[in-house]
Order: sequence, then structure tokens, then C-alpha cells
Amino acid sequence: MTRLFNDPADFADEMVDGFVAANRSRVRKVHGGVARSTTSPEGTVALVVGGGSGHYPAFGGLVGHGLAAGAAMGNLFASPSAQQITAVAKASEHGGGVLLSYGNYAGDVLNFDAAARALEAQGIEVRTVRVTDDVASAPADQTHERRGIAGDLCVFKVAGAAAERGDDLDAVTAIATRANDRTRSFGVAFSGCSLPGAEEPLFTVPEGRMAIGMGIHGERGIAEADVPTADGLADLLVDKLLTEVPSDLAAAGTSSPRVVPILNGLGSVKYEELFVVFNAVQRKLTEAGIVVVEPEVGELVTSFDMAGVSLTLFWLDDELEQLWAAPADAPAFRKGGAVPQQPVPVEVLEAGVVVPVTPGTVESRASAARVVSAISAVRATIDDHADELGRIDAVAGDGDHGIGMQRGSTAADRAAQDAAARGAGAGSVLAIAGDVWSDKAGGTSGAIWGAALEALGRVIGDESRPTAATVQSAVHAAVEAVLAFGAVPGDKTMVDALVPFDEVLTARVAVGDELVDAWSAASAAAQAAADATADLLPRMGRARTHGEDAVGTPDAGAVSFALITAAVLSTMAVHA
Amino acid sequence: MTRLFNDPADFADEMVDGFVAANRSRVRKVHGGVARSTTSPEGTVALVVGGGSGHYPAFGGLVGHGLAAGAAMGNLFASPSAQQITAVAKASEHGGGVLLSYGNYAGDVLNFDAAARALEAQGIEVRTVRVTDDVASAPADQTHERRGIAGDLCVFKVAGAAAERGDDLDAVTAIATRANDRTRSFGVAFSGCSLPGAEEPLFTVPEGRMAIGMGIHGERGIAEADVPTADGLADLLVDKLLTEVPSDLAAAGTSSPRVVPILNGLGSVKYEELFVVFNAVQRKLTEAGIVVVEPEVGELVTSFDMAGVSLTLFWLDDELEQLWAAPADAPAFRKGGAVPQQPVPVEVLEAGVVVPVTPGTVESRASAARVVSAISAVRATIDDHADELGRIDAVAGDGDHGIGMQRGSTAADRAAQDAAARGAGAGSVLAIAGDVWSDKAGGTSGAIWGAALEALGRVIGDESRPTAATVQSAVHAAVEAVLAFGAVPGDKTMVDALVPFDEVLTARVAVGDELVDAWSAASAAAQAAADATADLLPRMGRARTHGEDAVGTPDAGAVSFALITAAVLSTMAVHA
Repeated sequence: MTRLFNDPADFADEMVDGFVAANRSRVRKVHGGVARSTTSPEGTVALVVGGGSGHYPAFGGLVGHGLAAGAAMGNLFASPSAQQITAVAKASEHGGGVLLSYGNYAGDVLNFDAAARALEAQGIEVRTVRVTDDVASAPADQTHERRGIAGDLCVFKVAGAAAERGDDLDAVTAIATRANDRTRSFGVAFSGCSLPGAEEPLFTVPEGRMAIGMGIHGERGIAEADVPTADGLADLLVDKLLTEVPSDLAAAGTSSPRVVPILNGLGSVKYEELFVVFNAVQRKLTEAGIVVVEPEVGELVTSFDMAGVSLTLFWLDDELEQLWAAPADAPAFRKGGAVPQQPVPVEVLEAGVVVPVTPGTVESRASAARVVSAISAVRATIDDHADELGRIDAVAGDGDHGIGMQRGSTAADRAAQDAAARGAGAGSVLAIAGDVWSDKAGGTSGAIWGAALEALGRVIGDESRPTAATVQSAVHAAVEAVLAFGAVPGDKTMVDALVPFDEVLTARVAVGDELVDAWSAASAAAQAAADATADLLPRMGRARTHGEDAVGTPDAGAVSFALITAAVLSTMAVHA
Repeated sequence: MTRLFNDPADFADEMVDGFVAANRSRVRKVHGGVARSTTSPEGTVALVVGGGSGHYPAFGGLVGHGLAAGAAMGNLFASPSAQQITAVAKASEHGGGVLLSYGNYAGDVLNFDAAARALEAQGIEVRTVRVTDDVASAPADQTHERRGIAGDLCVFKVAGAAAERGDDLDAVTAIATRANDRTRSFGVAFSGCSLPGAEEPLFTVPEGRMAIGMGIHGERGIAEADVPTADGLADLLVDKLLTEVPSDLAAAGTSSPRVVPILNGLGSVKYEELFVVFNAVQRKLTEAGIVVVEPEVGELVTSFDMAGVSLTLFWLDDELEQLWAAPADAPAFRKGGAVPQQPVPVEVLEAGVVVPVTPGTVESRASAARVVSAISAVRATIDDHADELGRIDAVAGDGDHGIGMQRGSTAADRAAQDAAARGAGAGSVLAIAGDVWSDKAGGTSGAIWGAALEALGRVIGDESRPTAATVQSAVHAAVEAVLAFGAVPGDKTMVDALVPFDEVLTARVAVGDELVDAWSAASAAAQAAADATADLLPRMGRARTHGEDAVGTPDAGAVSFALITAAVLSTMAVHA
């Protein structure tokens, strides 16, 4: 919802003022919107865009060199008036005529057409290209009825670049028209947005569902479905758009067509999610034989904080590709950098990493097999309990301990098997598993588990079969490694379980117990300590913290430790 | 909430893959994150940044010429591992040593310090600068304990530019440290975010409230308050940061300090809101004697779709300003354009518009006074009913009809008074009011009301006092102007009220009724028609539309029309 405003009636004006204040090097305020604050060559075409506000960076964010000369910025979700458009066009034109381009909505058509008449009456030559990229808004045989959404950018970019290279008004109009003919978009929405001061959202989508083909103002879509996975959404969007290949391309049967994909977030589907979806989009396009050219992933045509996403495919030809790639420099869109850059050589791009393994003795390789079993048991145990660990962690942390432990143990399991297969001894298997665990888990707990496994491996070594005393020494070294991170017993961290484990194991091995029995007793002590820590959680009510504890994710760490010692015990029992 | 993902455990990896696929001209994937895909001069310092994921464009989006050489990208809200950081630094360095810079969180400190040791052990010189800009996270005498938030950008930008100009490692470290000392941020949050696959949000803020000083992972803030206006939020943020002027500047009593403000959205506080707040921020800073330099307003350090905003003030000196302004070209941040631009001349920037007024006869100026009263009555009536009009409109439109009518009538009222004061006749006053109404209201209904008023004015003229017959002719011309937009009776638009009004007025004036009586009867007919249209609304259940009706905002238009005719009637009664 829109939360920050003063008098809602002033919102659009204050928004333009703030936008201009933030971007004076590129735009200046004029009646009705903005024009470039930089000079343009006399006699070139001025591209004037516009529409309702609430869609930033459309439309003011697209004014600048190589893109629009001006933007009429209407009230929220309302067309700018004919007066606004006329005033912006007059302030923006520089002797080569005006191309008006905008998304195809009746209110905009009405006002832009009235502005065109007013401009012509004042002796300024005008042409119009309406963007009609939204395939959900009308059937393929009525493309002129379709709405304009994120495909605006393709048409504006091409028209702006053509104007910048000096094309005359008819030529700019022709290439912008071709860009529109080659642009198709399809989108979904997960939630609506509220206008400033409104008590109710402008439109809604049921929780967990998505409106397929919903427009950027909540216009009715073509269907509703459950929210799919990121890959599932990529399938939906790409498959639909591949049924809408521009007719001239389809007729020519062009092999390996070159396409600019634009994955656009409407407001609160965020960058990370967009990148995950784009990963699948570009894979699917490549599999379909399409060459992906200079894509855009981000927020390019929004609807305030609407949760939604659209995919645009812009089917290039040589000239369109050249114009798409041309320099542009607007507040919210740019092509080309201030300083030309050289790509790194291909061999750097493709360099891999090979990790060598020190071979162990036959004895140690036999122990390594048992270590591998133990690590696999740890992974399986953590998998089974990942949700529980997350729940415990959520009381005082950010709830990701389960997923972090899962990522670490899964990677460690795979690396341990690989190292053992390549002849590593038990110590090396443990050290490699520790390295990979901390690498993949990240955060503080990843570092701690990595350090613990590496300490274990260092004492166990790659020479002989470890005795009970060796194992006890190794565990003690691992405990020391963990304690080096700074926590002490009573901090309600994994140390609370670790220290009793070490003490009981040391005492039992000292009196000559079998390792399995000693481990079992130590494990019981750790479990009791973990239970005590976990029991305390609901009553703790601490502030949430992020990495502020010296021993990483607190509390849940004690439970993980107990689970791990139990898992290792079960493996030892099998081998005993 | 985060909705689009596949296996949550794969989210971070897939995110990096998608990010790289979208930005190949600037970044390449390396173990643990990304490095530049462009070459860097041998012997220069490599700035390596990083942190947990979920904060895009931090950190991968800041890799490129003039900024970072590489970014370690950890799992969601979790520090990258020491191995990741080490690998990214090794892939990124080019012979001049490595500066590690990152937000000050315990998990990051642990892993970056471990990476620093590993890199030093491999003969690579390393320095570290931790960003500590969040004033809410620790008192002013414990700045080294503070967390790093959006101020990351200031430190990274300065360090990256210093590295690019060839400063050695100690010099880059020194200037980055100074940038950090000169950077202060303060933020608020309105809602939390959910990690991919999580059933519960990571943290919450009560509806209508804001957490003041909450961290970017939901760390506890310093207070909670009701969500203020945009201006109120600007006051809160600026006032707090002006109590934290860097000590060397405060001691020197620098007049007119130069400051870069960064207004950062955390994810779902959107661009339009940020610009409205920034409008107040820059006004307040200017009033405080501060010179605003090259600001940034946008999403620079996010927390998925968290609703929150922070303000950063970066207090410049000459060298810091030069480094801030230096060219940069990363996926999500750039300075400088591909083609150098010339600002437009000052006289263009400051040009105003003067609208001339044709003077009316004495008789017509007397009528103009009554027209002004009538327009004021219309404005007052619309003000009183704006919410009701919005509610009716929300049934089938986007709920902004009340606010649009208010904007139009308020501007028309002001313009009419101004024109009358400057000697305009009744016809000109109406024409000017119509022009301003459509200009300020925008959309379709603004265009319609503008056309109607202009038609009225054209028939009334600036010569004589209008008779009942003239007024009836003028109303008929206005009705024709509205009908020219395409609606017909029965479309459930304002035409449904307008046509009976015209018919009754014409019939009554034809049989010689006084104008007030004829208008009264016509107004009653319009009101009955408007009531009938409004009654239908709850049962209509139509698709929401945006500008898709030929006569603009439907349904509510009939009610506005009835209100307006009644308001005009009351003024006529006073003058009769």
C-alpha cells in the first residue's frame, strides 16, 4: 500500500518536484511533466512519452539522451491532460517535429490526440505510435486494441535512438511502429496496490493465487491459478509468448531469432525473485533456439507496490538491435558506460578450480568410509529436522538455521563421498567436508561447523585407524575450535551442549570405556543440555539479532549439535 | 512476501545465475559471487564487497568500473563464507591488493576476517573498512559498534573511484575510512518481509505504525510511532541526522556544508513515495543551509519487499565530492553518461508562461462575477462530496473520481477568480476555468468537463448579460460537446443525467419560465437520473476498467453532474 503522502491531491505534483530535485542533471520541470535539462541537436525529432503516474520509471524516468525528450506526467493512474502533453511537447521539441508515444488506453488516446491537434495548429509536425504489447488484453487479430505495458520501453528506446541518430519524423515513426509490431508482453499479478490516501486496495488477488494477464491498473486478466514455482512461472510466460511470434518472423521461418527479454517487476516482486525467474526464462529461450540479446531484469513499468511480474519479448532485426544497443542516459535507464570497457578474455571467464586430494593409507581409507557414512547420516538427520531447527531459530534469530545446516551438510556429504572416492584418508575427508560445509552454509554457524570438522580431521589424520583416545582428542580439539569463536557455557548457544559432551566423552574414554559407549553417554548429556536450551526459548523474548552473537545462530545450534552427535552414534553402532 | 522460488535451498545460487545472465556485459560468475567481466588496470586496488543476499542491488549490483571489483554473495541474510570471500577476492584482484568493505555485522566480520587471513597467507595484501552508518544501532560514542546499511554505497563509491584513479591500497583504505566517518543513516520500517518458502514473515510491524531505527534484517529499533505524513517523515529523518554532524565538520563550524542525501527504499515503499518524501528532505536540508549535491533516490540497499525507508547524509569534502562524482558503471548504479551532455541555458530553465486575458464589457464583467460565485459553489460542493464520489467510482473504476473532480474544480475556481480580477468577461472566465479544469484534473473526465465549460463560455461570450435563452443555448452546446466524446444515454455515464437536464431546461425556457425555475426543474431531472445510475452500481459487478469507457470515469460522473447543477442553482437563486 502507498503509505507516504501529504494531501493526496498534491501527491502527483510533489512527486514530480521530488523527482526533478533528485535528477537535475537529466531533467527539468515544465508545465505538465519534465523535459531534458540537456541540449538536443536542432532539427532532430523529439520523442514525447507520457501517461498516468504510479508507473515509475515510466514515464519521467525515461527522459534523457537517447530516449525521450520529454514526458507528460499525469495524475495517479490517470492520463495527463491535453494541455500537459502540449506544454511538455512544446518545451521538448527542437525543430524536427514530435513523436508522441504512449501505452494504448482510451484516456491517453483522447488527450494525446487532442494535444496532437493543438500542436499541429501551432505549426509543429506530430506523429503518434501507441504501444500495444499486452497479449492478454485482446486477441492476436485485434492487436490495435491491446494495451501497452512494459513493452513501452522497447518502442521508446528504439524511437529515441533513431531520433538521436538524426532520422526524420517519418523514419522515427516507421521504426517505432516496427518496434511495437515486434514487441509482446504477458504478465501476472499476485496482489494489488492502494492509491495514496485510499482505505481499500484498488484491486485484490486472493492469497496464494495469481491473476494471469491482469493489467497494470488491475484490468481483468484471462485466468486465475495458484502461484507456481519460479520455473513454473517462466514456463507460463515463455510458452504463451512463443505462441505470439511476430508474423513476419514466423512466415520467414527465421532460425535462431535474436530477442531482447525484459523481465519486469511491478513493485514488490523483488530483484532476487526476478533473477531466479530470469534464470529459468533465459534457459527456456535458449532451449527454444532463441539468442538472448542485452536483456533487462528489474522494475521498468510498475504499479506502485503491486506484486506482479511481466515478461516482454522484443524480436529484433539488425536495425532494431543496433537501436536497442545505442547509448541512452535517462534517470532510470541507461545503455553504455561513461568509460568504454574491455571484456575479460574467454579463458578467464571459463576458468575452473581443481581441488587436489592427499591420498590416505589403506587403514585410513577404511576409516574414511566410516566417516563418509557418518556424514551421510548427519545429512539425513538434518534433512529430517530442518523445519524444526528453523522453528526454534525463528524464536530468536531469522529462522534460517535449518536451511543453512541443510545446505552445509548436503554439500559436505557430497564432498566427503567425492574425496573418499578419490582416495582421501579419514582426516582429509573430514577437513574437506568442513571446508565445503562452511563454504556452502555461510553465515556464522557455517564457519563454526567448518572449523569443528577441520579440527577433527587435523587430529585424526590420514595415517592410521583412529583409537578411542584419538577420537576423544579430536573431539576436544573441535570443541576448542568452536570455543575460539567466543561463546562460553550459559550463553545459550551450541557451546551449552558441546562442553558437557566433551567432558563426558573425555571422562568415559579415560576410564577405558568403548568408544561407542562413551559416545552414547556424551550424546545423552548433549541432548539433555539441548533440551534445556530449547525449553527456554519460548520464554526468552529476546530482540531479534543478525549475526550479533559470537557463536552464530543461537539456541537452535544446541539442538543441531545434539542431532548430529546422535546421528554419528548410530553410524558408530553399525560399524562397532 | 517472497513468492517466486523453486527449492528454497537453491534460491541464492539461482539468483546469482539469473543476475549474471542478465548482466554479462559487467559481471561474471565466480565461486562465491561475481567479479567484473571487464578488465582492470594491472596494479590497481581491487575493492571487494559482500554480504548476505536479499539486499539487491547490494552487493552484486555494485560491481563494475569505478565501483567494486567483485562481490561475495552469501545466502539469504547470511554472511558469505570465508571461502566465498577468498575466492571472489582472488578472482577480482589485479596486483594492487584488496580492500574488503562491508556492513558491520558479526557474521560478516567473522568471515571477512578469516578471508583476509587466507588471502594474506597467499601473499595478497588486504585491508578492511567496515561500514557503520546506522545511527540507530549504537550511541554516537560507540560508532564502531554501529551496523552498516545504505551508507555502504558512499563508502564503496569513494573507494572504487579512488582505486580506479590509481591510489595505492593504503590511500584507498584511508579515503574509504574517511567516507565512512562522514556517512550517517537513519531509517524506519512499516512492515517486514518473508524469506523464500517461509510461512511467517521474518518480523512484523503493527498496521499503521512504524518501527524507528529498525535494521535491514528486522533488528530492534529505538521507538515505534504512527506512520506520519511524507513531510513528517522527512522531518524525523533529517532532524535526527542533523544531530549527528561529523565531529570535524561540527568543530570547524563549516558554513554551507555540501552533502549527498541518499533516500533509500527497502523494497515496497515505491519510487513515487520516495520522490514525495525527497521533495521535503531537500527543502529541509536547503533551509538548514546545506548544499545538496548529486543525490540518489531509489532502491539501493533493500530487504526483499520490506516496506521501509532510510535517509543517508554523506558529508563531503572536496576530495570526497570528486570521488562521489567520478564515473561508475555497475549493473545497478552508474555515474556519468555514455555521451557527454550540455545543460540547457538558465533562461530556458527559468522560463515562465503568461496567459493573456481578453477584457469583457462592463455588463459581461458583472456576469463574470456571478460565474465566479457559481464556480466557487461548485468547488465547495465537490469538496464536500469528494469521498462519496470516490466511493461510487470505486465500484466500477479506480476510485479517484472525487479527487480528480476536486483537483479540477479547485484549479478552475482559482483561475476564474484570477481571470475576473484581471477584467475577463463571463465567457472568458468560463473558457479559462474549463481549460484549467481539464489541465489539472487530467484523465478522461477532466477533458470532458473542460470541453463542457469551454462550450458554455463560447456561447455566453464577453459582450452582454446572458439571457435565459443564451444560457439554454450554452448548456445545449456544452451537452453536445460532451456527447462528442461518444457516450449515449443508457451507457450509465454522466450523459444519463446530462441529457434529461438539457431536455427539461430547453422545454421550460421555450415556454418562458424564469431561468432559475427552469434550471431547478432540469436539476431535479438530473438528480433523479443520477440516483438511478448510482443505485445500479452495487449490482453491476463489472470488470474494473481504466479509461476504457468513451466517457471517462463512468457512473460517478452522473452524480458529479447532479451535484454541480445543484451548486450552480444555489448561486443563481442568490443572484436572482
